[in-house]
Amino acid sequence: MLPQAISDLSLIRSRNPIIHNVTNFVVMQTTANVLLAIGASPIMAHAKEELIDIVNIANALVINIGTLDENWVQAFDLAQTQARKRKIPIVFDPVGAGASHYRTIVAKRIINNGVDIIRGNPSEIMALVNEEHKAKGVDATHESNAAIDSAKILANEYHCTVVISGESDVIVDSTRITYNKHGTPLFTKVTGTGCAATAMIAAFAAVNSDYFNAASHAMMIYTKAGESAATLAQGPGSFSHKLIDILFHFEEYDHVSK
Amino acid sequence: MLPQAISDLSLIRSRNPIIHNVTNFVVMQTTANVLLAIGASPIMAHAKEELIDIVNIANALVINIGTLDENWVQAFDLAQTQARKRKIPIVFDPVGAGASHYRTIVAKRIINNGVDIIRGNPSEIMALVNEEHKAKGVDATHESNAAIDSAKILANEYHCTVVISGESDVIVDSTRITYNKHGTPLFTKVTGTGCAATAMIAAFAAVNSDYFNAASHAMMIYTKAGESAATLAQGPGSFSHKLIDILFHFEEYDHVSK
Amino acid sequence: MLPQAISDLSLIRSRNPIIHNVTNFVVMQTTANVLLAIGASPIMAHAKEELIDIVNIANALVINIGTLDENWVQAFDLAQTQARKRKIPIVFDPVGAGASHYRTIVAKRIINNGVDIIRGNPSEIMALVNEEHKAKGVDATHESNAAIDSAKILANEYHCTVVISGESDVIVDSTRITYNKHGTPLFTKVTGTGCAATAMIAAFAAVNSDYFNAASHAMMIYTKAGESAATLAQGPGSFSHKLIDILFHFEEYDHVSK
Repeated sequence: MLPQAISDLSLIRSRNPIIHNVTNFVVMQTTANVLLAIGASPIMAHAKEELIDIVNIANALVINIGTLDENWVQAFDLAQTQARKRKIPIVFDPVGAGASHYRTIVAKRIINNGVDIIRGNPSEIMALVNEEHKAKGVDATHESNAAIDSAKILANEYHCTVVISGESDVIVDSTRITYNKHGTPLFTKVTGTGCAATAMIAAFAAVNSDYFNAASHAMMIYTKAGESAATLAQGPGSFSHKLIDILFHFEEYDHVSK
Repeated sequence: MLPQAISDLSLIRSRNPIIHNVTNFVVMQTTANVLLAIGASPIMAHAKEELIDIVNIANALVINIGTLDENWVQAFDLAQTQARKRKIPIVFDPVGAGASHYRTIVAKRIINNGVDIIRGNPSEIMALVNEEHKAKGVDATHESNAAIDSAKILANEYHCTVVISGESDVIVDSTRITYNKHGTPLFTKVTGTGCAATAMIAAFAAVNSDYFNAASHAMMIYTKAGESAATLAQGPGSFSHKLIDILFHFEEYDHVSK
Repeated sequence: MLPQAISDLSLIRSRNPIIHNVTNFVVMQTTANVLLAIGASPIMAHAKEELIDIVNIANALVINIGTLDENWVQAFDLAQTQARKRKIPIVFDPVGAGASHYRTIVAKRIINNGVDIIRGNPSEIMALVNEEHKAKGVDATHESNAAIDSAKILANEYHCTVVISGESDVIVDSTRITYNKHGTPLFTKVTGTGCAATAMIAAFAAVNSDYFNAASHAMMIYTKAGESAATLAQGPGSFSHKLIDILFHFEEYDHVSK
């Protein structure tokens, strides 16, 4: 799969797709820097007065509810509606779904309105599935199985791709499933690394209309870059910058690491 | 005191306390990364629709007024009220108190509503004390003494611990005082390092209910890590990442530095 | 010009001018760290309740529309009005002007209200000029010439200095023009580097009342520091921190690089 992933990356570098992020305050800088490192063009904008204009020049939309409030919920809705009209890929990051009733409700509404790809950790993905559906997951003997069941339910019901991030990432759509074993625990020690993965998926979806493949490729590149960064890092502080450096030169690093 | 401080740090690493930050835009990323580096779990949330839910899963609350406005002031109030009900530690960072009338008024109201620990620089701590009380500080021959007087007044009147950050940190409560001489001037050259200290204090207070000791331990670990980072840094850019790396591996670095 | 630029830098280091930034969420941290590295004192504040107080203690004001919305537009207006009254330098960064109608309208209104220096990339500068004026630029055979024409129109009409960032920076006012050939493509791969240049210009304008010279000096120091950082960096991640380290020690690095 790596050659195809690198092929997508090359397209991103040549086309510089514009990724519109309606995202949270904590991760805006990291998200923008990861997108720049892979050759995409990030825009952060949330004002109701300009959302339609900005979506109209974007090649993909990221919705991330990390620091949501009523104004941002309005922004999510406006941007999503316009992105649907334009049929550009919508990638959703349900940060903290399940941690508050408000987050869960907002996240479910966004999914109902139509998204193409969802990326979250196991507990977030599970929080998106209604209780009555969860009962179907009777064969879930531990959390990761339960999360995969939830992802399959979401993929089927909403015709989307779902990415579960974790020690091993799982990518599912209504007919396919794949696993990505690359990664490093240092990802969990730097804020915004999950949100940056979501933004990377959006960049790949902007150049690859098979969203299952786009998501799988993005996760492979990102986690392999993370593995390389971890070998060079002294801790999460240096990791976060080496990750950017390696994404920027991905092909060279990957070549060396083979 | 170092063994006790490391003992608190070990508790943070094993319990992963959830630290809810209602904080400012400039420092959210740094705050989250420092908390992750020491083993705590940061949450940033400010929507009135979810503050009670989020405080209900938190082990400590940080209130930081760095980029306050009327919406954030409402968020401070809601979060603080619920944190008081749950009796989780509330740590307050009066960023810029004294720089505007609004900041000073908001800061004083927050203190009146009940906080457990306050951390600020000398001018911020002095700005929190009413003019009529300041008259008591007649023996203050220079700023640091005046700040200590103010800290003692606050500690007595509001039954809290007060940390004055500076070349030498001073920690006081109504009966105790201690000094921490560790640190580096590079802390003053990186934005958010004071705010991150406040968040670290909250993590220590989440595992050590003697808040005077919790604050003292947090400041010791943080400033000793800063000292080590300064010896490895070429300037404030590299310092900020080495600080995170060293906090992540604190025990090892500390062992080496002895 | 370098000796004069370093002379301004020395004044910043000795006077620590307070730079009030009403800026965007993505770049607040980077902006603050660049200002701290050169010896200035950053303040970020946007609440209508305190803007007048904060402007009153500031030595320069930065207005940056990167993540604007109606509340921030009100903040721009309040801060700008007070800065005009106090006659402190106002430096404007029209982030994304032209990308949405809203941004363009807001940017033009800010310029109409009076600014001293504008810094943007070529497309942003061109978006600030009204269509009827653009017709004057008939001799513009390619984008960079068209941008210079736009900058001259703005400089004449609004009596301000205009900085066009690019491979070669151009600084114009109503009578002067200068070019700065220093720089590195890595600046375009890190978010907030343009916004940080704007903030640096504000710091230089706080100590040098010839704003054309202030802007030219700031751009020279910033881009020369970038060149040095690029030679030491492995990619945009390490570049961003080496840039801060080098700005912090600028005179030494510059000496070595000669």
